[in-house]
Amino acid sequence: MRTSAEYYADLLKMKPNLYIGGQRVGRDDPRVRPGINVMSVTFDLAQHPDWEGLLTATSSLTGKKINRFTHLPQNPYELMQKQKMIRLTAQRVGGCIQRCMGHDAINALSICTKEIDDKYGTEYNRRFIKYLKNYQGKDLAAACAQTDMKGDRTKRPHEQPDPDAYLHIVEISDDGIVVRGAKISITMAAYADEIIVVPTRAMGEDDKDYAVAFAIPADWEHVRLITRPVWVRERKQFKAPFAEMGVSDSFVVFDDTFIPKERVFMCKEWEFSRRLALLFADSHRHSYSGCKPAVSDILCGTTLLVAEANNIERIAHVRAKISEFAGGAELAYAAGIASALYGERTSSGTFFPNVIYANVGRRLMGETIYHEFNILTEIAGGLSVTLPFEDEFISKGTKPWLDKYIMRNPKVPPEVAHRIWRLVENLSASPMAAWYEIAGVHGGGSPIMETITLNLEYDYESKKNIAKYLAGINKELDQSKYLREEPTFGRE
Amino acid sequence: MRTSAEYYADLLKMKPNLYIGGQRVGRDDPRVRPGINVMSVTFDLAQHPDWEGLLTATSSLTGKKINRFTHLPQNPYELMQKQKMIRLTAQRVGGCIQRCMGHDAINALSICTKEIDDKYGTEYNRRFIKYLKNYQGKDLAAACAQTDMKGDRTKRPHEQPDPDAYLHIVEISDDGIVVRGAKISITMAAYADEIIVVPTRAMGEDDKDYAVAFAIPADWEHVRLITRPVWVRERKQFKAPFAEMGVSDSFVVFDDTFIPKERVFMCKEWEFSRRLALLFADSHRHSYSGCKPAVSDILCGTTLLVAEANNIERIAHVRAKISEFAGGAELAYAAGIASALYGERTSSGTFFPNVIYANVGRRLMGETIYHEFNILTEIAGGLSVTLPFEDEFISKGTKPWLDKYIMRNPKVPPEVAHRIWRLVENLSASPMAAWYEIAGVHGGGSPIMETITLNLEYDYESKKNIAKYLAGINKELDQSKYLREEPTFGRE
Amino acid sequence: MRTSAEYYADLLKMKPNLYIGGQRVGRDDPRVRPGINVMSVTFDLAQHPDWEGLLTATSSLTGKKINRFTHLPQNPYELMQKQKMIRLTAQRVGGCIQRCMGHDAINALSICTKEIDDKYGTEYNRRFIKYLKNYQGKDLAAACAQTDMKGDRTKRPHEQPDPDAYLHIVEISDDGIVVRGAKISITMAAYADEIIVVPTRAMGEDDKDYAVAFAIPADWEHVRLITRPVWVRERKQFKAPFAEMGVSDSFVVFDDTFIPKERVFMCKEWEFSRRLALLFADSHRHSYSGCKPAVSDILCGTTLLVAEANNIERIAHVRAKISEFAGGAELAYAAGIASALYGERTSSGTFFPNVIYANVGRRLMGETIYHEFNILTEIAGGLSVTLPFEDEFISKGTKPWLDKYIMRNPKVPPEVAHRIWRLVENLSASPMAAWYEIAGVHGGGSPIMETITLNLEYDYESKKNIAKYLAGINKELDQSKYLREEPTFGRE
Amino acid sequence: MRTSAEYYADLLKMKPNLYIGGQRVGRDDPRVRPGINVMSVTFDLAQHPDWEGLLTATSSLTGKKINRFTHLPQNPYELMQKQKMIRLTAQRVGGCIQRCMGHDAINALSICTKEIDDKYGTEYNRRFIKYLKNYQGKDLAAACAQTDMKGDRTKRPHEQPDPDAYLHIVEISDDGIVVRGAKISITMAAYADEIIVVPTRAMGEDDKDYAVAFAIPADWEHVRLITRPVWVRERKQFKAPFAEMGVSDSFVVFDDTFIPKERVFMCKEWEFSRRLALLFADSHRHSYSGCKPAVSDILCGTTLLVAEANNIERIAHVRAKISEFAGGAELAYAAGIASALYGERTSSGTFFPNVIYANVGRRLMGETIYHEFNILTEIAGGLSVTLPFEDEFISKGTKPWLDKYIMRNPKVPPEVAHRIWRLVENLSASPMAAWYEIAGVHGGGSPIMETITLNLEYDYESKKNIAKYLAGINKELDQSKYLREEPTFGRE
Repeated sequence: MRTSAEYYADLLKMKPNLYIGGQRVGRDDPRVRPGINVMSVTFDLAQHPDWEGLLTATSSLTGKKINRFTHLPQNPYELMQKQKMIRLTAQRVGGCIQRCMGHDAINALSICTKEIDDKYGTEYNRRFIKYLKNYQGKDLAAACAQTDMKGDRTKRPHEQPDPDAYLHIVEISDDGIVVRGAKISITMAAYADEIIVVPTRAMGEDDKDYAVAFAIPADWEHVRLITRPVWVRERKQFKAPFAEMGVSDSFVVFDDTFIPKERVFMCKEWEFSRRLALLFADSHRHSYSGCKPAVSDILCGTTLLVAEANNIERIAHVRAKISEFAGGAELAYAAGIASALYGERTSSGTFFPNVIYANVGRRLMGETIYHEFNILTEIAGGLSVTLPFEDEFISKGTKPWLDKYIMRNPKVPPEVAHRIWRLVENLSASPMAAWYEIAGVHGGGSPIMETITLNLEYDYESKKNIAKYLAGINKELDQSKYLREEPTFGRE
Repeated sequence: MRTSAEYYADLLKMKPNLYIGGQRVGRDDPRVRPGINVMSVTFDLAQHPDWEGLLTATSSLTGKKINRFTHLPQNPYELMQKQKMIRLTAQRVGGCIQRCMGHDAINALSICTKEIDDKYGTEYNRRFIKYLKNYQGKDLAAACAQTDMKGDRTKRPHEQPDPDAYLHIVEISDDGIVVRGAKISITMAAYADEIIVVPTRAMGEDDKDYAVAFAIPADWEHVRLITRPVWVRERKQFKAPFAEMGVSDSFVVFDDTFIPKERVFMCKEWEFSRRLALLFADSHRHSYSGCKPAVSDILCGTTLLVAEANNIERIAHVRAKISEFAGGAELAYAAGIASALYGERTSSGTFFPNVIYANVGRRLMGETIYHEFNILTEIAGGLSVTLPFEDEFISKGTKPWLDKYIMRNPKVPPEVAHRIWRLVENLSASPMAAWYEIAGVHGGGSPIMETITLNLEYDYESKKNIAKYLAGINKELDQSKYLREEPTFGRE
Repeated sequence: MRTSAEYYADLLKMKPNLYIGGQRVGRDDPRVRPGINVMSVTFDLAQHPDWEGLLTATSSLTGKKINRFTHLPQNPYELMQKQKMIRLTAQRVGGCIQRCMGHDAINALSICTKEIDDKYGTEYNRRFIKYLKNYQGKDLAAACAQTDMKGDRTKRPHEQPDPDAYLHIVEISDDGIVVRGAKISITMAAYADEIIVVPTRAMGEDDKDYAVAFAIPADWEHVRLITRPVWVRERKQFKAPFAEMGVSDSFVVFDDTFIPKERVFMCKEWEFSRRLALLFADSHRHSYSGCKPAVSDILCGTTLLVAEANNIERIAHVRAKISEFAGGAELAYAAGIASALYGERTSSGTFFPNVIYANVGRRLMGETIYHEFNILTEIAGGLSVTLPFEDEFISKGTKPWLDKYIMRNPKVPPEVAHRIWRLVENLSASPMAAWYEIAGVHGGGSPIMETITLNLEYDYESKKNIAKYLAGINKELDQSKYLREEPTFGRE
Repeated sequence: MRTSAEYYADLLKMKPNLYIGGQRVGRDDPRVRPGINVMSVTFDLAQHPDWEGLLTATSSLTGKKINRFTHLPQNPYELMQKQKMIRLTAQRVGGCIQRCMGHDAINALSICTKEIDDKYGTEYNRRFIKYLKNYQGKDLAAACAQTDMKGDRTKRPHEQPDPDAYLHIVEISDDGIVVRGAKISITMAAYADEIIVVPTRAMGEDDKDYAVAFAIPADWEHVRLITRPVWVRERKQFKAPFAEMGVSDSFVVFDDTFIPKERVFMCKEWEFSRRLALLFADSHRHSYSGCKPAVSDILCGTTLLVAEANNIERIAHVRAKISEFAGGAELAYAAGIASALYGERTSSGTFFPNVIYANVGRRLMGETIYHEFNILTEIAGGLSVTLPFEDEFISKGTKPWLDKYIMRNPKVPPEVAHRIWRLVENLSASPMAAWYEIAGVHGGGSPIMETITLNLEYDYESKKNIAKYLAGINKELDQSKYLREEPTFGRE
């Protein structure tokens, strides 16, 4: 497993294909550093003996110890360990740990390549397993590029006025394929080793050129990462972990990019496009049952701190509001647990989370994220967004006054009070606040996407049968399905 | 195990101590029949080979096959089987299966009597186990009487102007004790074999006379059941299971009632009053993760049917609303699963659900029940509450017109349409609707009770530590607790 | 103006065409009495000097003093007086005052008949004014029959498999027309003097036979009122106004019913069908800004009383919840005021409420009604639905115990406590509860109907222009419309 | 009336007492320019003939034409004109127009100084009127400094460990007074001409040194403005009004500041402290019924634009969501109208908005602001926060790709699409987004403050009386109050 230093050293070797603020820059640009700091935590903790077995796993391919972010879960316990790992690391970086994107992408590909091969006798799975062995061995981090710009939403890919609105194959040769298009909102691409590309939706036969999946190094030829970094105002004196962290999203342009054959994992098998899209999405939604509770944990802890700074932490309505974080976090976490326990072993051996539970959990989170920020704001008060800059807490002409007045609770000394307010400001009144709100709605699919998935997958027919029985329309009620659905326990 | 016929025969042997509509009546009164019909399902299904192992269990006391409603779960799987059994049976009776009250009471007593004995060397557990062997052997059904009238809410039991505001011990002798007081809102007491009494709250030392638990036959001397039955308008021609079901709640008066020693399970051990109250409440909240999903299932199915009758079942906003039932049901069910998996083996051997998950699940349900009825109403339209009586669908002078006009969807013939609307009316515009709404808020403790429990039990300190770490107030973040909390899997 | 006794005497003269519980009955049937009691309040208060000028108005047709329920408002103040009258009377009857249906129907017809005449030179307005003079002079009460059964919702009237799914003209002669069809959910038809029929939706030219409006006495030949009465359990000893009140809704069958020419107000003018449908609906939505605040007032007052009975009325979260009623009531009332002030004088002289404000107010109420019942339930506790019957509070064998235990707050004696709980039960756990919940959603059009109206009528274009200006897409922002829209003040 | 150029020239004459980013700076600092741009609109539009009579008013003191922001409304129409002016100007600046702070402060002082004088024979009103004549004549803009840091929330001002936790009088002389303390979160102080100070809460007799009100020039001796400006990323090429606007909030330190007698408007009259605090707060809450609808208008328009860019503007669920903006905006606006119409003429002649309607309107807005941003986010999608920087849309290496892919709807050309997305980003994913969310909750008092006000001022007793009547507890219902409450119409 790599150390974070080795990871960073690898980034520095990459060709500069980031475009930020009118410049082409490399991974040493300070504006992507906060995102790199987030990723580093996933390497650092894997080295730490405390997290042995949580941040690490035993590869199902090689039997070797690997970083769990590169692992294919083999049973419910391993899915639950993934959840736990994500919650744990997300708490440390102040929210999104980012690296689960790659995890969910490799899981989706491990399953779908097998299923394509089973149907068509192709060799995608062999290619992918070979790719993954290297990925695990080198402890790589991948971004998953799924979302296309999509052009006119009322038209399918092949109907678009601009045929490049969705990424597609423009050429196939013996050595590989050439692709064109753009993937948007690709988190962590700017400091990933690899970019894994999967389709964004179901495709019809006419769309078959758009049914394509592959992986490439992030600095590959003819790949441009037009990158938007997000960070909070840098601290001069009152350093804090939250202020070191951030994120970058990239608009990834594929400009007739050549993909070598060995890195192509789907090529025109359009019937599997929806399957692969959902395998990634549903795996990612399950990952949200780890990270979203962590976001609630952070908001909860911060709200508790600021309530203390305001000396109102014992007031009943404050306590009631704070308990909403507990509800949000644990319902989502429980949905993840149920999803693991009622998951299924796929033909590839990879154990996949139950889709219903993954979706009801993710949807809840997407629906409540703004409300959770609202609670923090209610308890904190307006000062979150009117807090003078850190400089004023340092500068002689202003520091005495701010130190004097920032103290509300006699048990919370000025510096601590200032640090609490600074965290509140960073969390709720900075560009990161918007990032968490918006990613909280849309990351992994917005609530409306989960509603659509539920409406496709949920067993509504059995509910109708219950009503027909109770109404006397049907004389019998066949509930035997309830007996057959059994959880898969344990670590076996 | 008893058949439902045997159960009913036993009820008929009881002394008439029900008070309904100004009369003293026995269990043969037709107004309690709908509740008896509900209970009968728990006996009938246990006889059915399809539900072997779900409605039945192997007694941890005797090794014999027993009705699961009389069982003490020994592992997570058995807690999950309890959930499943409740959901399954609740679907069949149109909602509350009622008999879990007794289940939760015996579980609470099995644990608490052991803990009292461990501290005081008393013999409550021996007494209780003896009681329970008989209970399991005879396949009895018990109501649990917990809620006192409580008098002035701002005063503790011993401070009340009327000392009987909470049930209490008025005399102790070698043979037993004498108690006085009233328990209110006691569901199914009117057709239970036994009534199990537990305290309703924490007690201080001054309240020790109020710390009392015991069990008695429901027709015991000096026990009056002032009973309010709830049912829907009886069907004359368009018979349907839902219309056969109902519920009775009783105001149970203990008028210097003698309780034999062998049936006393707590007697002044006030320090355990809160423990016992919460053991019952939390076990019952876990049971809600079985029944409340069933209520959502029923509302979901009925809404789907009426959407079909209205021929609007494909409309996007209708689908979106219906998917809310899926979310509600499965989040609550998932909370129950997580509660089982993260439960704990108590010193008594009984496996107890995790309190946090049981409470977040129950609270969600209590918060959304009115909203779920709202959805049904939105989709159904005003006809739910203006539907002419069944007689008009039978009577010659009106039937032709109603049959003609009731048909909206050409695929749904008049009788089916009528049956659908009748179910909608029974479910959403009858006294049962109010019962489900109000019991949905308060049964097992209202959302505010779960909030209080969460505020007592949730690990808020760890959340604060996360915020302190991210703010730079604490340099280190000790998260090792996350490693220690491991699920208990399986059936072992 | 009639007295309530005269009103009742007139009802007794009517032919028995109500169908209830398998029988054909007259207006003396006790099951419709609770609805008659409601109507009586509108007559009684108009006689009372306190309400002179509020319950009464000066007819714009004759200059005589009339009951305001039969009046055509001529200015904003009169619309506001209508609101106030409805809130006032609704408070006294425990909710829906019902008689505004007729008020809204005559207002809609006064406007639409004029507009049809202006276009086609017809004489509907003359007929209608003549009809209305008699209506005002005799102080009549009319139900408005708008909602058709509608058949297949995906088809327009003329496309229906059953052409009678919407009420339509089957014959036209010199004397009048013959109509066939059914109108459903028609509140108060069973004890109205007249039934006014208006279309339920927009019609195309092919639907022109369905574009019809008229008025007939409620016991007219070939009119059947298949009636569903709703009431609460009659009181034996603890009499109370709320328990005397109720409502009946009718399924009104028109079986080739002849309508004399002078009573026909629209006949195939299909282009005005939507207009007339919305004139009634929007006027009725404005009426909701009077009655719905009254429902909130009643729920608010009852919640306050039961909080007092529970001795929890000072607790902060209880106070916060109760204040939600104030918010609901006054926002809806304010919407009605703004709707009056920004209303428009139509060509007929009738002053019509502003559609936007009428719809945002009504929608809010439809969205929150279940939630308001939820609040009452939260504060009241489970006893609302488990309260023993009144008989038990009278019968010697049970009264002493109930009187003893019902008292929680030492300041609230047993009878008062019982009366409070009885009201809570009547209001939240009786068939009337469901009626108010469901009518609260659907009466006057459900929230989705108001959303549709808003999406048709709201000036979204001006909002887009603001955004285009702020985005720099448009260089100028024309806001002059804001200057032109001026309120119409006062009584002129 | 001043032009905006004159206003700016006046600012440049002021002494530099702003502290930003570690420096002491003057009003020419570019970081406060965006706020000055907002203020300028209030001067510019007052010069424009289109807004004559809306942005201008006739002074009740001098009969001269003045800027309405400096006016004391004399009747309901003038209060409604204030609302309209605020909505109009707020639409132009993208939200908060800021200058209403001064408006609300002068209104509060005009009333309260009169009431103090009436009781004590003081001369505050004379002083204030003199002050105000100058204020109107010079067309000044004032910030209102109300919120103190408050120290320990559980203690009253005189009980605080630090006596300066609330601003207070430290010395009184013949010439004036000396004050010490700090006021926080003071919007626009950094570019106001004047700062008007009023108390933040009710005071007891022991707190009388804290009962103080006065006005001073914003660059007065011993006044420090520790200022936090908020702005969006400056545009290089795609200029747009929204991007020019911003806001600054100041932490205003009074360091033994001398206030000349003629500028002191309350000095130890502690009984009037609550009155003055609420006069300002309630006037400001009424102002929110102008600005908050504008915020909804802007969010609505932007959501419509981005729906169009996404080509999803016709989809039903999108339309339904957008209509929520209409509901929010118009309910709040209606509350303001009702507040004006049911306002009261105070002894000073100033017409004051009705408190109940002002509070229910403001509370609604505070409760829904996060939800409104949520809607925009739902419709826009994740691109709002991942949109590449403007530079990338200019730079040759990236512009072609972004122009190509940004176009989704064929009717929306790339530059327009880019401008739409840039506005969405500015509005929902910038520091301004957080400012609007947090100010939307807390500005003018958070929802909990309005709940407290409602619980103090709302006529709950009449609601209880309704319930007592309906329950049969009281035999009569006195509703005469409803007759007495009459709206004050018009312009008189």
